[in-house]
Amino acid sequence: MKAWENNIRKVVPYVPGEQPQDANIIKLNTNENPYPPSPRVAEAITKLEADNLRLYPDPKIAALVSAIAKYKGLNDNQVFVGVGSDDVLAMAFMTFFNADKPILFPDITYSFYDVWADLFKVSYQTKALDEDFKIIKEDYLGDNGGIIFPNPNAPTGIAMELNEIEDIIKANQDVIVIIDEAYVDFGAESAVSLIDKYDNLLVVQTFSKSRCLAGIRIGYACGNAKLIKYLNDVKYSFNSYTMNYPSIPLGVASIEDENYFQETLAKVIATRQWTENELSKLGFSFGKSQTNFIFATHNSCPAKKIYEALRAAHIYVRHFDKPRIDNHLRITIGTPKEMNKLIDQLRRIV
Amino acid sequence: MKAWENNIRKVVPYVPGEQPQDANIIKLNTNENPYPPSPRVAEAITKLEADNLRLYPDPKIAALVSAIAKYKGLNDNQVFVGVGSDDVLAMAFMTFFNADKPILFPDITYSFYDVWADLFKVSYQTKALDEDFKIIKEDYLGDNGGIIFPNPNAPTGIAMELNEIEDIIKANQDVIVIIDEAYVDFGAESAVSLIDKYDNLLVVQTFSKSRCLAGIRIGYACGNAKLIKYLNDVKYSFNSYTMNYPSIPLGVASIEDENYFQETLAKVIATRQWTENELSKLGFSFGKSQTNFIFATHNSCPAKKIYEALRAAHIYVRHFDKPRIDNHLRITIGTPKEMNKLIDQLRRIV
Repeated sequence: MKAWENNIRKVVPYVPGEQPQDANIIKLNTNENPYPPSPRVAEAITKLEADNLRLYPDPKIAALVSAIAKYKGLNDNQVFVGVGSDDVLAMAFMTFFNADKPILFPDITYSFYDVWADLFKVSYQTKALDEDFKIIKEDYLGDNGGIIFPNPNAPTGIAMELNEIEDIIKANQDVIVIIDEAYVDFGAESAVSLIDKYDNLLVVQTFSKSRCLAGIRIGYACGNAKLIKYLNDVKYSFNSYTMNYPSIPLGVASIEDENYFQETLAKVIATRQWTENELSKLGFSFGKSQTNFIFATHNSCPAKKIYEALRAAHIYVRHFDKPRIDNHLRITIGTPKEMNKLIDQLRRIV
Repeated sequence: MKAWENNIRKVVPYVPGEQPQDANIIKLNTNENPYPPSPRVAEAITKLEADNLRLYPDPKIAALVSAIAKYKGLNDNQVFVGVGSDDVLAMAFMTFFNADKPILFPDITYSFYDVWADLFKVSYQTKALDEDFKIIKEDYLGDNGGIIFPNPNAPTGIAMELNEIEDIIKANQDVIVIIDEAYVDFGAESAVSLIDKYDNLLVVQTFSKSRCLAGIRIGYACGNAKLIKYLNDVKYSFNSYTMNYPSIPLGVASIEDENYFQETLAKVIATRQWTENELSKLGFSFGKSQTNFIFATHNSCPAKKIYEALRAAHIYVRHFDKPRIDNHLRITIGTPKEMNKLIDQLRRIV
């Protein structure tokens, strides 16, 4: 080994779901929305001007920050925008989790949290979900250096009631509590309504799932003006211009089409209900999903076997080879046609 | 102060040049290219498909990595792509600068280096440029934790000979040496030719200046496959999908138009020569610029006065209120028409 290798930060990176390039694959493995973004986004693409690309984009991302703030009924200084919610969460880890005490998050949760903790040298403790894969509120009421969990949780799909979340925020006013609401639009109640009441609360959302815009990379955080300022200071210390020119008008166009947003959500939720019914008939069980995926286990057939059989049939779902959840599959809600094909295949497999 | 504020990472962020939205301003303050990107980029915009936006972009950014590698005569595993060279450099600081010994960079240089060092808690030492604003090679031959400097240097615009750079790399094979070549295409010799010879060398370039694409946010690093792998590991631990869908085909389109690239460079260089002549006649002096800007001082009129007078005339240049350089102005090369207006105004001011 060369001497220079001693000073390299060696990390075990997050492993995202596969992104196969073959269009014949039914892709139910990374929780993308099966529908295209609003037609207004397509229209906004036609209005992009190549000449604008020679200039740096607006470092304040003002147009998009304002559109989100207006939509949420917030002030512009209560909104932070980043390159997908992963960028927002990474910045938040760096900005807010610098205590000597460990931060807390569930044992079964978004698998990027421990990766960020390792990268930024943040100590952490995980708290086990209960047997039904629910977060146990009481676990988060003790001494800690900060708290983060998704609501609804991933990959379980299960949401916590807002009053329980408020209990956690209220009991932890000396640290920052981050609620990661990547999937909230599919059925859970958002904690954004609490940001004026609790100055230690940061709520993170994304355009990747409910707005059908995983490809544009827009995530955002809502919190009080002071938290957002600290977050921006760190962001400006990392990269002044994170959001490229196309992402700004395309993001604004999406926010401005509320009808399409609601219609798309309703379609995904209806397909989820249909899929849940069919899965039940086939012997699968799962918690109540309030997301665009179902986290299911079968009463006799091992998850890994199903995963591999589906894969052979060109249907990709997600299997996590991890303790407690290695007999579960995370199945993204696709179009009705895609879910029909999935159920057909599952009928053959199980 | 609330208790939660104790654990916040407080930083003094980098201050980028202003981005005024008024189109009447002659903007010579952030080293953007005055010409639009290649017509092929405009064409690539028309081919963007809104439907693709529902999917995550390729986390490996394979199309763009390959296009850059092919252009540079490298293998794909020798190229890392990020959200502008600032993102690439931030990742490189995090990945490579973890020694106990301080890293070295010039006292007058890109003002983001000390910001990243502070953000990532990297100790550093600055080495003074000589009286002609040149980097003194011998300062970089002693014990250190890593080295970074721009070539040509910013905001001086002065380049170092490649054989001198090689002496520095050769003398520092136990640490990583980063050559930041944001402006190299405007006249300096690139160190990319040395990456096969020295495995401790990382060379960073950008699409923002010479490719007229500051708005798309593409930067890249060239180095041996091992360095690039370590950099990717850290990147995947930060955000799996940093480059959005539009940036990938637009970046590829730019790389594929070599004629336009060379023509644009030639135009900027010709305008730089004209501007240098005119500035000399007006009593300005400056080092030999190998960039798309001139770093000039006047023999009688204070830089700050000129800066303010130009600003009043809607011409923005950059003035740094810092020791040793506070009597200099950094003037980006614009179109011939813009530079004519600049010279006219300067004639009135000085």
